[in-house]
Amino acid sequence: MNAPAQAAHLLPEIHQRAVPPALVEALKARFGERCSTALVVREQHGRDESVYSVPPPAAVVFAESTADVSDAIKLASEHNVPVIPFGVGSSLEGHLLAVQGGISIDVSRMNKILAINAEDLTVTVQPGVTRKQLNDEIKSTGLFFPIDPGADASIGGMSATRASGTNAVRYGTMRENVLALEVVTASGEVIRTGTRAKKSSAGYDLTRLMVGSEGTLGVMTEITLKLYPLPEAISAAICSFPSIEAAVRSTIQIIQMGIPIARVELIDANTVRMVNTYAKLTLREEPMLLMEFHGSPAGVKEQAETVQEIASEFGGNAFEWATTPEERTRLWTARHNAYFAAIQSKPGCRAISTDTCVPISRLADCLLDSVTEADASGIPYFLVGHVGDGNFHFGYLIDPALPQERDVAEALNHKLVTRALQLGGTCTGEHGVGLHKMDFLLTEAGSGAVDMMRTIKRALDPKNIMNPGKIFAF
Amino acid sequence: MNAPAQAAHLLPEIHQRAVPPALVEALKARFGERCSTALVVREQHGRDESVYSVPPPAAVVFAESTADVSDAIKLASEHNVPVIPFGVGSSLEGHLLAVQGGISIDVSRMNKILAINAEDLTVTVQPGVTRKQLNDEIKSTGLFFPIDPGADASIGGMSATRASGTNAVRYGTMRENVLALEVVTASGEVIRTGTRAKKSSAGYDLTRLMVGSEGTLGVMTEITLKLYPLPEAISAAICSFPSIEAAVRSTIQIIQMGIPIARVELIDANTVRMVNTYAKLTLREEPMLLMEFHGSPAGVKEQAETVQEIASEFGGNAFEWATTPEERTRLWTARHNAYFAAIQSKPGCRAISTDTCVPISRLADCLLDSVTEADASGIPYFLVGHVGDGNFHFGYLIDPALPQERDVAEALNHKLVTRALQLGGTCTGEHGVGLHKMDFLLTEAGSGAVDMMRTIKRALDPKNIMNPGKIFAF
Repeated sequence: MNAPAQAAHLLPEIHQRAVPPALVEALKARFGERCSTALVVREQHGRDESVYSVPPPAAVVFAESTADVSDAIKLASEHNVPVIPFGVGSSLEGHLLAVQGGISIDVSRMNKILAINAEDLTVTVQPGVTRKQLNDEIKSTGLFFPIDPGADASIGGMSATRASGTNAVRYGTMRENVLALEVVTASGEVIRTGTRAKKSSAGYDLTRLMVGSEGTLGVMTEITLKLYPLPEAISAAICSFPSIEAAVRSTIQIIQMGIPIARVELIDANTVRMVNTYAKLTLREEPMLLMEFHGSPAGVKEQAETVQEIASEFGGNAFEWATTPEERTRLWTARHNAYFAAIQSKPGCRAISTDTCVPISRLADCLLDSVTEADASGIPYFLVGHVGDGNFHFGYLIDPALPQERDVAEALNHKLVTRALQLGGTCTGEHGVGLHKMDFLLTEAGSGAVDMMRTIKRALDPKNIMNPGKIFAF
Repeated sequence: MNAPAQAAHLLPEIHQRAVPPALVEALKARFGERCSTALVVREQHGRDESVYSVPPPAAVVFAESTADVSDAIKLASEHNVPVIPFGVGSSLEGHLLAVQGGISIDVSRMNKILAINAEDLTVTVQPGVTRKQLNDEIKSTGLFFPIDPGADASIGGMSATRASGTNAVRYGTMRENVLALEVVTASGEVIRTGTRAKKSSAGYDLTRLMVGSEGTLGVMTEITLKLYPLPEAISAAICSFPSIEAAVRSTIQIIQMGIPIARVELIDANTVRMVNTYAKLTLREEPMLLMEFHGSPAGVKEQAETVQEIASEFGGNAFEWATTPEERTRLWTARHNAYFAAIQSKPGCRAISTDTCVPISRLADCLLDSVTEADASGIPYFLVGHVGDGNFHFGYLIDPALPQERDVAEALNHKLVTRALQLGGTCTGEHGVGLHKMDFLLTEAGSGAVDMMRTIKRALDPKNIMNPGKIFAF
């Protein structure tokens, strides 16, 4: 494996394609007030949680149906203009930025639950449904959708980036949990991938090809997901450890023993401190694992006992249990606030997030050296991890006005990714490639595999209008 | 959804492309005795478990390395000649037949376990490794590979058809269990898809695109699989039911309650009879569920008790338990022998296998009407099912010399597939499309989705040399 090329500190050169007035007129004629060219609306759709600044899209179409999406794409195609789907704007990697110009298709109004098939443990939703909305609306069925990337992201966005998060260690990622899709292609055609059958060998796996394609192959307009029975018993616990290493080594052993833990999240001492300040909590300011167990009451008890034994072998102590929904919500809110707590800890900063994921046996090797490097850099950071999957995030908190801080952060990220790839891992466990990891992808996958991706893209989107300039240069 | 086009009773017209003597000479020069043109060898590589008869490939190359596969494909590409990968020949759908002529690349000698990463629960193998060999060779690690399609298929073939089988209800299919691949593309280039990380958002999911592509996009030369810790406790049981309906309704309830059962297989009374005769067993000749539970001793006990309660509500009785490995082997051998027992019950017959899979709530609707139709047809059949997944197989036992028997069987299959698609299911849960289900795929997926598959095929294999004529006409 070669070393990654030097990380791109700056965006690839921007060549925004022209958006002809005739297209905007046609969109206004078709969509009326649902096509906006107001600067504030365009700017809102031209940024995300990444560090980049790019001129906004020329117009925003608020789609309310599959036909809307199809018509918008057909018009854009006629004019050779890029199309960027927009859910809630929580991308960390620049997926939503109009780097080649174009129009934004906002699907947030496509937020209906279309069919709940509780007896089959499936649900079909529109792409603008958010994960919290979904779980609220299906509560009465006794089922839930476990994928939880932290942000209240849209199901469309989560599918497009192959998101995962805290429950993935037990329930898998969007890769495992999207059963079927309706997709509008680059020509505006509407296709369906997959059925509601739990498994199938019927031809190419177009569902999985679309999941994680970051809007570059089509716009998802219906998504059929797997659901799970709410566990009979749920128990959550915090355990503090004398070191990050102790927490990580406990995690490795939990996973290697095959314990079906539902969540096992690392938060380092520094991030606990930020969360305590932000949310006025009094968590012990030591590295901690935040865990959750799902199952029958006996099963949960059995899992919890085994995990406590493992943790205590590594010096873990002070298990704090949370069995009521309210206590659990408090714990998980603390976890989910880590990002915002960190951002607030350094006013005006932006976070450069890393997203490496390595085989579980390499987790300590990958993480500990990177902690040493981050500590030595002087850049403040937060560190959280879905460590049961070998996935963790540093968020380097940089002042966007100071290019040297960004350089230091990118250099740290570069070292981390290089290490992760050498250990058999990936540069992105769940955030996607977007603009930020194109060079890393090339190093990770090799030019042959990236060329295959590009060949598929070219074949399915010959005019290169579907969210162009993401994943790979094209 | 439209009704499927009339099932193809006969093969699409065969246009075998010429294999120029210059190619055979070049292959012999490169591979020596490992390139065979002996008729017996070619015939052995020109048939599978399907009902079709097609002239065999012009030559067979026995590959022993990735470089061998690459060189064979490069030579075939130079001469525009099709290439068909061959593992053990257990396809039921004609995947291995040289319908457009060409050469067979036999990968059965590529049968090494390349790397066992026990601490990460992964293994990397060559494509010719069979599932039994794999489990034998990793036994000492305390891990196992659960996917079990019945036949001792090659891991390459299982990946190429997205196989699954008896354990899929708990452990998923090849879709969920292939982590990464090395693939030789249509140009002979060697690429890697994926890493050993458990999850990734790094670009298009080429792994899942290759899994289930039936040799039409490339030849897999290395396969990295997930492994699982051998359960602390395993318990298997047989339960007889007064009717197929009672067995199926029990299964539906087991799944809807979220019980993590590892196997739940239906065998109808008729098939039990065939198995008893074939294997000299004395199983009760009633519809039965064959079940297996994996977990901690307490967990297995808990699951088994719940399932016994459910079964008894539906009139299930006479639970026979098998807790020793020997007893379990005897049970599962009976299940795996069902196909051969059925074939032997009508000397000289061939089986036309169905493979529909429906959402679990529709399983009774789909299955029971099809049993009535099969009974009325007069054609003998066997019926087995991975019913926990909503997947089941009729095997209609036809005399290949009597076209009217094949017509009746195909008409039964046609009705069954039509019903399954109407119920939100798929025409193939695990066998693949091959030659037999191309019309069904078109009905199931729609022409837009099949066109997308064809576009991808054309882009990645412009000369159409990779196992052409399978999945879709091209």
